[in-house]
Amino acid sequence: MDEFKITFFPEHKSVSVDRGTDLLTAALKTGVHIYNSCGGEGVCGRCKVIVKKGDYITEGSGRVSDAERNEGYVLACRTSPGSDMEVFVPEESRLGDLEILTEEIKAKRLAGLYTPVEEIEEEHYKVTSKIFKHGPLSTKIFLKLPNPTIDDNSGDADRLLREIKKHHKEINTIQMGLSNIKRLPRLLRESNWEVTVTLGNRNRTTEVVLIEPGDRSKENFGVAVDVGTTTIVAYLVDLNSQKVLGSKASYNPQVDFGEDVISRIIFAQHEKGLEKLHHAVIDTINTLIDNLIKEASLTLDDVTAVVSAGNTTMTHLLLKIDPANIRKDPYIPAVNFMPVIRASEAGIKINPRGLLMCLPCIGSYVGGDIIAGVLASGMDKTRDLSLFIDLGTNGEVALGNKEWLMSCSTSAGPCFEGGGLKCGVRAMKGAIQNISIKNNSLEIQTIGNLPPKGICGSGIVDIVSELLKNKIIDRSGKIKDNKICQVRDCDGIKELVLVVAEDSATGKDITIDENDIKNLIHSKGAIYTGIEVLLKESGFEKSDIKHVFIAGGLGTALNIRSAINIGLLPDLPEKSFAFLGNTSVAGAKMCLLSYEATDKADVIANKMTYLDLSTNALFMNNYSAALFLPHTDIELFPSVKKLLS
Amino acid sequence: MDEFKITFFPEHKSVSVDRGTDLLTAALKTGVHIYNSCGGEGVCGRCKVIVKKGDYITEGSGRVSDAERNEGYVLACRTSPGSDMEVFVPEESRLGDLEILTEEIKAKRLAGLYTPVEEIEEEHYKVTSKIFKHGPLSTKIFLKLPNPTIDDNSGDADRLLREIKKHHKEINTIQMGLSNIKRLPRLLRESNWEVTVTLGNRNRTTEVVLIEPGDRSKENFGVAVDVGTTTIVAYLVDLNSQKVLGSKASYNPQVDFGEDVISRIIFAQHEKGLEKLHHAVIDTINTLIDNLIKEASLTLDDVTAVVSAGNTTMTHLLLKIDPANIRKDPYIPAVNFMPVIRASEAGIKINPRGLLMCLPCIGSYVGGDIIAGVLASGMDKTRDLSLFIDLGTNGEVALGNKEWLMSCSTSAGPCFEGGGLKCGVRAMKGAIQNISIKNNSLEIQTIGNLPPKGICGSGIVDIVSELLKNKIIDRSGKIKDNKICQVRDCDGIKELVLVVAEDSATGKDITIDENDIKNLIHSKGAIYTGIEVLLKESGFEKSDIKHVFIAGGLGTALNIRSAINIGLLPDLPEKSFAFLGNTSVAGAKMCLLSYEATDKADVIANKMTYLDLSTNALFMNNYSAALFLPHTDIELFPSVKKLLS
Repeated sequence: MDEFKITFFPEHKSVSVDRGTDLLTAALKTGVHIYNSCGGEGVCGRCKVIVKKGDYITEGSGRVSDAERNEGYVLACRTSPGSDMEVFVPEESRLGDLEILTEEIKAKRLAGLYTPVEEIEEEHYKVTSKIFKHGPLSTKIFLKLPNPTIDDNSGDADRLLREIKKHHKEINTIQMGLSNIKRLPRLLRESNWEVTVTLGNRNRTTEVVLIEPGDRSKENFGVAVDVGTTTIVAYLVDLNSQKVLGSKASYNPQVDFGEDVISRIIFAQHEKGLEKLHHAVIDTINTLIDNLIKEASLTLDDVTAVVSAGNTTMTHLLLKIDPANIRKDPYIPAVNFMPVIRASEAGIKINPRGLLMCLPCIGSYVGGDIIAGVLASGMDKTRDLSLFIDLGTNGEVALGNKEWLMSCSTSAGPCFEGGGLKCGVRAMKGAIQNISIKNNSLEIQTIGNLPPKGICGSGIVDIVSELLKNKIIDRSGKIKDNKICQVRDCDGIKELVLVVAEDSATGKDITIDENDIKNLIHSKGAIYTGIEVLLKESGFEKSDIKHVFIAGGLGTALNIRSAINIGLLPDLPEKSFAFLGNTSVAGAKMCLLSYEATDKADVIANKMTYLDLSTNALFMNNYSAALFLPHTDIELFPSVKKLLS
Repeated sequence: MDEFKITFFPEHKSVSVDRGTDLLTAALKTGVHIYNSCGGEGVCGRCKVIVKKGDYITEGSGRVSDAERNEGYVLACRTSPGSDMEVFVPEESRLGDLEILTEEIKAKRLAGLYTPVEEIEEEHYKVTSKIFKHGPLSTKIFLKLPNPTIDDNSGDADRLLREIKKHHKEINTIQMGLSNIKRLPRLLRESNWEVTVTLGNRNRTTEVVLIEPGDRSKENFGVAVDVGTTTIVAYLVDLNSQKVLGSKASYNPQVDFGEDVISRIIFAQHEKGLEKLHHAVIDTINTLIDNLIKEASLTLDDVTAVVSAGNTTMTHLLLKIDPANIRKDPYIPAVNFMPVIRASEAGIKINPRGLLMCLPCIGSYVGGDIIAGVLASGMDKTRDLSLFIDLGTNGEVALGNKEWLMSCSTSAGPCFEGGGLKCGVRAMKGAIQNISIKNNSLEIQTIGNLPPKGICGSGIVDIVSELLKNKIIDRSGKIKDNKICQVRDCDGIKELVLVVAEDSATGKDITIDENDIKNLIHSKGAIYTGIEVLLKESGFEKSDIKHVFIAGGLGTALNIRSAINIGLLPDLPEKSFAFLGNTSVAGAKMCLLSYEATDKADVIANKMTYLDLSTNALFMNNYSAALFLPHTDIELFPSVKKLLS
């Protein structure tokens, strides 16, 4: 078979591939990560690259305009080489740099542009964390065993268990595996009967995970992980002091195989697909842990426990369980309540005998990240009615109080992540995050104050709100002629030019068209209707809601006022809203530090009712009424009515 | 290094070995098993072979007489080649054939020579087995799971566990490993939601061991194993019907590395010693299981559980745990209460996910075989005071009732196994098992009525009793001049010629000398004193004993009357005695079939007091008084007093 050399720029990285290999796959092999949301199916049009040299075979796609085609633009996933090639990957087709983003958001917060999330978080978690008694997934205890004598002649292992039970009278069933027993006789005698035992909390039994010579009880560390569809976040936690020693984040490289869970489930059915997805996430977690322990001057052996929270599909992929049935009617995961296993069984590199616990899921589309979120929010602890919203590709919503909990998942679509928009980008440097209209002129604010590249998730909410307020669009999302912003027709669709080509970083106009607005309306409508359905099914009114907890990466950058204006969030006093940041990792950390929290997570998962909206008549009926800005029935949004009048 | 070819006869099996390799090791490599009781230390003198051809280097040994040396006899363990060699292994230096022995004993029983053990056993076990509720170590249940729907959307694994709990409300904590979860989605759908689940009783939690498609609940089998120092016995058991489908026995090939537990513990300290000992026992168990399932037309996968009972050292070696500290003051095993593990972890080949449980031990010298025996005897169930004796190289004795249990281990020495005697042999074909003196002449009875080879364990008891009765020896064991049996002096030691060379199978005289009698007196004295100490420590009298249970391979061939005559067993009415056969495998079978029995075994092991006789003053004081036939104080044996008067 012919082999062609493909070189990607500006990295100047080359790879040899067979004829027929697409450029997306080729780029991946060189470590160049091209953004795509459909898993290389030629649908999303995000993986545009520019061919600089060489012959190629490409499929025609509506996603590439004639003008672009003339400049050499092709969809990487639909293009394969006919000779050696040189390919340029433009910045808007790349995954951004998460660390920079995080810094940016912090800077914004400091500048007062957003609610100071961290303070709220701290205040909030100070309360919710303290509810749970300290009792980590793995505990180290130092024991001085009495020396054996003729009269006190129980076996080494029996002696150890006896002493553990003496110190922990609450332990009923305690297990110790053969490998520890084998090591024990020498270890006990060499350490002069002074050892540190790591006890693991394993599915309601206690396990002797590890036995070390001498007193090592001070060195016990764990990692809490949020395995998000887009982002993976890890906290290194001192299991004794309960302090977070460091945190790291990385994009989930599974993005290379598809942006949303559905496209990854499909990819998992390909040959070695499940394995590739599994390794992508495991390798990332291992790198994050590795970096965390290096910074803290620890070793892998010091880490004895990992707790992970992720949606149902992410958790399946983490454990290398085939998620196929999650997307087949009637949408059944292989498992919701995962057993605690040895981390090494899942390929996670900590102490070889360390444990991995995954937070339970409650169904195919409401997973451990939401259980973690509800746990972290503490909404199950109070009589107050609370609403929990995780804004992402899947917008998960939970409603309830200490008596009951109900949840649903809405297919919000990718627009809260900057996807599905003509000029959408992730929340990267240069992404438009805010606009304001002053003195009849448009002012654009971008992350990093750099030349604009496109519109990110929180940006589109802000933009549409501002356009609505200034009557540049009407409540159905139609663009009106105005004196502020150029309106033009593009292939029969009206669009607003926000940035002209010469001012943009991409050298092209940045626009927002009626389709983009329609997409946003569909997304916000889905979430809003989800909230409505939960309220109606539970017999409560919007006004009964005392707290709205907003979680997720987008959450922290969201302008609450704008979100209410477009009808994404219910019209409640702004003080009702609280940003909780990454509640997934926060909940995972709680479970890492407290078996009471773990038990609580199980209780939440068992107690929570899951409403499947795809078959819910109420949802169908209410959804279309929500496809208006802010809603067909503006009386539901009195503050917006006042604003627009 | 030089290599020499050594050929063993009459097998005509050859092996090439380096200079310096001893003949014992060489023979083992060809599969020729030479008897030795000291582990190749040159002490026991049992491994005599005849060099027919070739040069060799040998150490001088008092165990080889000048006459033997002239015939080419050497100790295999102390001899290495100087050239290629031809070596003949005489029958008395070989391990016998266990199957034949078993048949012989059965024949004897039928001939009325012994108490009809099997009937007693059956009658006894009919009672003790029924005490325990049927509840095997692994249970198979057939489940028809409700098909998942949008409304009944719990995960596959969660659905399975839910249905199990519905049928088994008593199950509290249930565990399922990752590998089963991974297989589940496909398995459930391909089997149309009808599956058979194997539930394992694992250290007080329930584990989903196995999931099979369709109804396989009828096919559930287990194996009960007695891992004896000398013999390994395995029963194949239908875990549903509770029937024994077959039984097999084999010598424990660890004998090649030393006959008693001490020499094996020493051997375990050699390079790869532990591994060799472990593999020896595991390979044998695997062969026994293999043969059992072939005869029953089953497959290895049908076997889901193994329960083993063995002494503490045997159990350590089975699990490949270093037993070193068992023989070092203060004699501490690595573990007494072994966890239930996967059989494959110990190298036992059944269903790869099947379980292995070892009966608990209570100390270095009272192990799971005795716990099994006490369980099988049912002595812990009655108010009657019972005595349990396991006759072997270690004579273990237990005393007690439903309120209390006490045990000790006496170093009886090898003479009950035919060891430590000048002309001792194992209970093999041609072994002298009985003598009777009629009309002033000696009549010899051998196993199989073949020309005599030597004296076996039950034979020496019978012979000494008969000699005492006929006043050929006195109560101190001294040989007296008599008209029945030739007395002669050999190196200053008096001996009786039982069989002259021309009548024997070995071509040599078969004799019993005063040292042999002394050895027996020491052995029987140790056991009798053990019984006395237990009685005194518990404040009971001999006459309080209602039942004496005799266990062990020797037990079934023992003549009770002779054993009382020599003072091995207390002078109680013969109806008090019951032979229970192999109580070790019987107890293992009970635990295999009932978790109540397993719990009971734990209770017994926890309840039983262990007396270490090596440091017991009472034992020291009483022991010397027992070194008489039957005892210094003949009033303790009124029936013997009458017989001798």
